[in-house]
Amino acid sequence: MNRYFPILTWAPGYDRRTLAADLIAAVIVTVMLIPQSLAYALLAGLPAEVGLYASIAPLLIYAVFGTSRTLAVGPVAVASLMTAVAVGEVAARGTPEYLGAAILLAVMSGLMLLAMGVLRLGFLANFLSHPVIAGFITAAGLLIAASQVKHILGVRAEGETLVDLIPSLAGHLPDTNPVTLVIGAVATAFLFWARKGLKAALLRAGLREGWAAPLARTGPVLAIVGTSLAAWGFDLGAQGVALVGDIPRGLPVPTLPPLDPALWQALAVPALLISIVGYVETVSVAQTLAARRRQRIDPDQELVALGASNLGAGLSGGFPVTGGFARSVVNFDAGAQTPAAGAFTAVGMALAVMFLTPALYFLPTATLAATIIVAVLGLVDLRALPRTWAYSRPDAAAMAATIALTLAVGVEAGIVAGVALSLALHLWRTSRPHVAVVGQVQGTEHFRNVERHEVVTAPHVLTIRVDESLYFPNARFLEDLIAARTAADPAVTDVILMATAVNEIDASALESLEAINARLRDAGMRLHLSEVKGPVMDRLKRSHLLDDLTGRVFLTQYDAFAALAPDLARATRDRDRCETARPWPRPAGRVGR
Amino acid sequence: MNRYFPILTWAPGYDRRTLAADLIAAVIVTVMLIPQSLAYALLAGLPAEVGLYASIAPLLIYAVFGTSRTLAVGPVAVASLMTAVAVGEVAARGTPEYLGAAILLAVMSGLMLLAMGVLRLGFLANFLSHPVIAGFITAAGLLIAASQVKHILGVRAEGETLVDLIPSLAGHLPDTNPVTLVIGAVATAFLFWARKGLKAALLRAGLREGWAAPLARTGPVLAIVGTSLAAWGFDLGAQGVALVGDIPRGLPVPTLPPLDPALWQALAVPALLISIVGYVETVSVAQTLAARRRQRIDPDQELVALGASNLGAGLSGGFPVTGGFARSVVNFDAGAQTPAAGAFTAVGMALAVMFLTPALYFLPTATLAATIIVAVLGLVDLRALPRTWAYSRPDAAAMAATIALTLAVGVEAGIVAGVALSLALHLWRTSRPHVAVVGQVQGTEHFRNVERHEVVTAPHVLTIRVDESLYFPNARFLEDLIAARTAADPAVTDVILMATAVNEIDASALESLEAINARLRDAGMRLHLSEVKGPVMDRLKRSHLLDDLTGRVFLTQYDAFAALAPDLARATRDRDRCETARPWPRPAGRVGR
Repeated sequence: MNRYFPILTWAPGYDRRTLAADLIAAVIVTVMLIPQSLAYALLAGLPAEVGLYASIAPLLIYAVFGTSRTLAVGPVAVASLMTAVAVGEVAARGTPEYLGAAILLAVMSGLMLLAMGVLRLGFLANFLSHPVIAGFITAAGLLIAASQVKHILGVRAEGETLVDLIPSLAGHLPDTNPVTLVIGAVATAFLFWARKGLKAALLRAGLREGWAAPLARTGPVLAIVGTSLAAWGFDLGAQGVALVGDIPRGLPVPTLPPLDPALWQALAVPALLISIVGYVETVSVAQTLAARRRQRIDPDQELVALGASNLGAGLSGGFPVTGGFARSVVNFDAGAQTPAAGAFTAVGMALAVMFLTPALYFLPTATLAATIIVAVLGLVDLRALPRTWAYSRPDAAAMAATIALTLAVGVEAGIVAGVALSLALHLWRTSRPHVAVVGQVQGTEHFRNVERHEVVTAPHVLTIRVDESLYFPNARFLEDLIAARTAADPAVTDVILMATAVNEIDASALESLEAINARLRDAGMRLHLSEVKGPVMDRLKRSHLLDDLTGRVFLTQYDAFAALAPDLARATRDRDRCETARPWPRPAGRVGR
Repeated sequence: MNRYFPILTWAPGYDRRTLAADLIAAVIVTVMLIPQSLAYALLAGLPAEVGLYASIAPLLIYAVFGTSRTLAVGPVAVASLMTAVAVGEVAARGTPEYLGAAILLAVMSGLMLLAMGVLRLGFLANFLSHPVIAGFITAAGLLIAASQVKHILGVRAEGETLVDLIPSLAGHLPDTNPVTLVIGAVATAFLFWARKGLKAALLRAGLREGWAAPLARTGPVLAIVGTSLAAWGFDLGAQGVALVGDIPRGLPVPTLPPLDPALWQALAVPALLISIVGYVETVSVAQTLAARRRQRIDPDQELVALGASNLGAGLSGGFPVTGGFARSVVNFDAGAQTPAAGAFTAVGMALAVMFLTPALYFLPTATLAATIIVAVLGLVDLRALPRTWAYSRPDAAAMAATIALTLAVGVEAGIVAGVALSLALHLWRTSRPHVAVVGQVQGTEHFRNVERHEVVTAPHVLTIRVDESLYFPNARFLEDLIAARTAADPAVTDVILMATAVNEIDASALESLEAINARLRDAGMRLHLSEVKGPVMDRLKRSHLLDDLTGRVFLTQYDAFAALAPDLARATRDRDRCETARPWPRPAGRVGR
C-alpha cells in the first residue's frame, strides 16, 4: 500500500509545525502559479481558465501519489508547446474540438504514464539521452519565445517552426499595434530586470533575505497587476490591445474526453512524447531537490503519480501537466515539507478561479507573452553544444540534430530524430566491442593482448578475448571478425573464445556462435571456449551449442592452451620462472568469485 | 579501387579451368532460376517478364561489385512478398502504376543500400536481432504459402494478413476450379517428393552423386514442363485454368522510375525494411558459403554490391533482389569459383527472355504457386520459438511478437514491432548493469563485493563498483542507485565510484555524474573516483566534472580507502598478513595494462 500511496508514509506524522511551513510555501507558489497557468494556457492555444483548472486537481492527486516532498506539478512551457503542436494538427484553435483534443491528450498521457508505472517501464525514459533532451529543451525554448513575439507586437502570425514563424512575423510587422508593443516591451524589460535585480532591490530596501528571495519571484504578479491597471485606467482594449477578457468563474466540472478512435490514434505519438519528456524532467527535478535534504524518490512511483495527475488534469477539463523546475525550486526554498503544500496550493488556485477571475479581465495577453518569453529564455543553453562537442562528438551530433530538426521541422520530428540518432550511435558504439588476440605471458599461466605485451602464441591456435557481453548489437561483429582472422591465416586450426568479460550471451549471439562453429567445422577448424562464467554456462547448457561444439569448453585459458599446444604452454609457463621477480597474478576470472 | 571493385581481385587471374567450373554452375543455376523468377514475379503481383528482367542486370552488376564468390542474387520469396505489400498500398495490381512503384522500390532500396555502404552503416543491420529476423521469416513463409493457395484453387481471394486471407479463401472455396486444383495438387505433391526423393531416385537410377545432386534441383523445371504440356495438350486454358500467357520477348530496356515525391515518401519505410532484411539474409548466406572455402566477404562492400544490383534491377524494369539462400547453395555445390558464374547465369536468363518465352505461354500459374509453396515452407521453423524460449525468454517474446504481428497485422508492422521490442529489451537489460558495494579483503589491498565476501568497510565510506561502461541507457540507474544508498544510510559522508570496468563515459553519464556530485555536495557528502582507466580519464579532463568534484580521483581503490579511512585500511591490509597462506592477487585493473 505504501508503495502506491506514499501519502501514508507522511500523513500520519503530520503536525502543526509542518502545516505552518507547508502553508507559507503554498501561498508563495500560488502567487507564482496564477500568472504561469494563464500564460501556459495561452501558449497551448487554450482558454485561460484551462490553465487554472490544470493547476487544481493534478496538485491534489500528486499529493496522494507523489514520492517527492517538494515537486510542484502543473502546466509547464515545453509540454504546453507540445500540446499546441499536437492539438493544432487535429483541430483549429478556438474550437470546442481543440479543447477536447487537449483534454484527451492529458487523459492519454495520464493513462500511458500510469501503465508504464504499473508495469515498471520507467527505463524506457532512458531512450532520451541527455544530449537529446538538453538539445530539445533549448530548441523548444527558442521556438516558444519566437511564438510569443506576435503577442508582444499585437499581430497575427502563423507557424510552428522557426522556418514558418520568422517570415510570417516579418510579413505582419507593419500591422504592429504600438500600444501593445509598449506594454509588451515594458513588461519584458521589467521581468528581465526582476529576475536578477528585484531581490537586490528588496534587500537594499531593508527586507530580510528570507523574505526577499520569495518576494523576488513575484515579478510576474507585479507585471500583471501593473499592466492590468494600465489597461483598465486607459481603456486600452479600445485601442486594439488584446486582453484576456471574460474567464468563467467557478470550479472545474468533471469532463469526459472525446472517444473518437481516429483522434486517439492521431494523438498517440504526441501523448507518448509529452509523457516521456515530462517524466524525464519531473524525475530530474524531484531527484535534485530530494537529494538536497537526503530524501528519496521512487522513479517508478513517480510515473504513477504523474500519470494520475495528468488523468486528473484531463478529467477536470485541464491539459497536460508536468513537474516544473522553477516552481518546484520556489516551493523548496519557501520551506515546503510535504506534498500537502501542493494540496494547499490547489486550494489557493481553486479560490482564484472562484473569486479572482473578474480581476483578470483587463490583463493584456502581451504581459502573459512577456512572462513566457522571460521564463523560457532561461531554458535556452546554446553553450551546451560546444561543451558537449569538446567532450564527445557523437553526443554533440545527436544534440545538434535534435536542435536543428526541432527548430526547422517541428518538436516531434526533432525529438524522434534525436532518439533515433542516439540509439543508432549507441548501437554503433556497442557493435564494435573491444577485442584482443591474446597469447601467454612468459613464466605464467596468464594471457595478454598480443599487440601490447610480449607473449607466446602457437601458429595453429587463435585465441580471441572479447571485452563485452555478446548480444545482438555485436553478434555479427564477432562473426565478421572470426571470418576475417581465420581467412587471413591459413595455419589456424583451433579458435579459442576467451569469455572472461562475457556476462551474457543472448539468442542472437548464441545463433552467431552456432554459425561460427558450423563455418569453422566446414573449413576444418575447431571452436573452443574458455573462462566461461557460471551463469552463462548454465544457460549454454540449455542450448544445442555445447552438443555441436567442434572443440571443448575449458575452465581456464591456460587449460585450453595447454591442451591444444601442450609443450609450448608448459615450456612458456616454466621458462624463466625462477628469474621472474614478482609473482604474476592469476587471471581475474579465477579469483574471488 | 579493389575495395569498391572486387572484380579486380579475381578477374586478372581468370583461367580456363575456372571458366569451365563457372559455366557448369551457371547452367544449373539458370535452369533453377527461370521458374523461380516467374514464380516470385507472380508472388509480387507483377507480370512474369519482370521476374526475368530482375535476374539479368543485377547478376551482371553483382559480379563486378560483390565480394562473395558464390552468392546468387535475384528475386526471392520474402522480398517479393514485401514488394507486393508495399506496392499494394499505393497502386492497384495490374496497373502501370503498380509496376512503376515496384521499379521505384528497387531503385530506392538500391540507393539506400549504396548510401549505407559508402557511409559504412552496415552496423544498422544489427537493429534486426536474430529472434526478430527468424520470427519474421517464419511468419513471412506462412503468409506467402497462404497467399498462394488461391492460385492452387483457381479462385480470387484478397488479403495481406492471415486474418484477412483465411476468411476470404473460405468464402471463395465454392468457386474452386477442379482442373486447376488437380494441377496444383499434383505439382505440389511432386515438388514435395522431389525435394527429398528425386536425388535418391536418380542415385538408384545409376547416376553419380556429382550429377544427381544438381539434377535433383530440377524438380520445378520438370513440374513446369509436365504441366505446361498437359495444359497445351488438353487445352486447359479453355477449362478455366489460369495460364501465364503472353510474355513479351526481348531484353529489358532502360527504365526510369516514377519521380512523384509523394510516392517516394510512401515507399521510404518499405524500401528501408526490404533493404535491411535483404541485406541481413545476403550477408548471412554469403558468410556461410565463404567460410566453407575459407574465403572472406566484406560486409560493407556487400551493401554497395547489393545496392548497385537493386539499382540495376529497377533501372532495367525489374523489382527488388536479394542474395537467395537455396540458389546460392546450388551455385556453390555446382562448383562456381567466381562471380563470373553469376554473369554467365545472367546471359542464360537473357537467352531465356529472348527465345524461351513462347514456350511459357501454357504454364499454369497453379504450378508456379506450387513451387512457391514448397520453397517457402522450407523457411518456416516454428520449433525455433520453444527452442528460443528455453534459452532466453525476452528473446522468445520478441520472436513471438514478430510472428504474431506479421501474421495478424502485416509484414511491416511485424518487423517494426520486433525491432522496437528487441531494442526496448536491450535497453532494459543494459539499463540495470551489475553493481556491487565493495569492501577491503583482509590481509590485502584488494576489494570485493560485500555480499559475497568477508570484507572490511568503513561506516562513512560507500564504495560502489559498476561492472559496465556508463552511458545513457544506465546513466539514470546510477543516479537512482546512489540516491537510494545514501538516503538509506545517514552515516555515509564519502562515496567512491570504482571504475575498473568503465570503458566509456558518454555525455549523458557525464551529466549524471555531475548531478550526483552536486546532489552529494548539497547533502554534505563527497564523491570520489578510483581506478579510472586512462582513455576515460583523458576525456574527463576535457569536462568540468574534475574541477567541480567534491572529492578526489584516486589511482587505486586501496589509495582511496587508505585516504578516507587510513587506520582501518592499513590495519586491514596488515592484519593476518603472515597468516595468509596463499598470496592474494591484486585487482585486475592494476595488472598488465
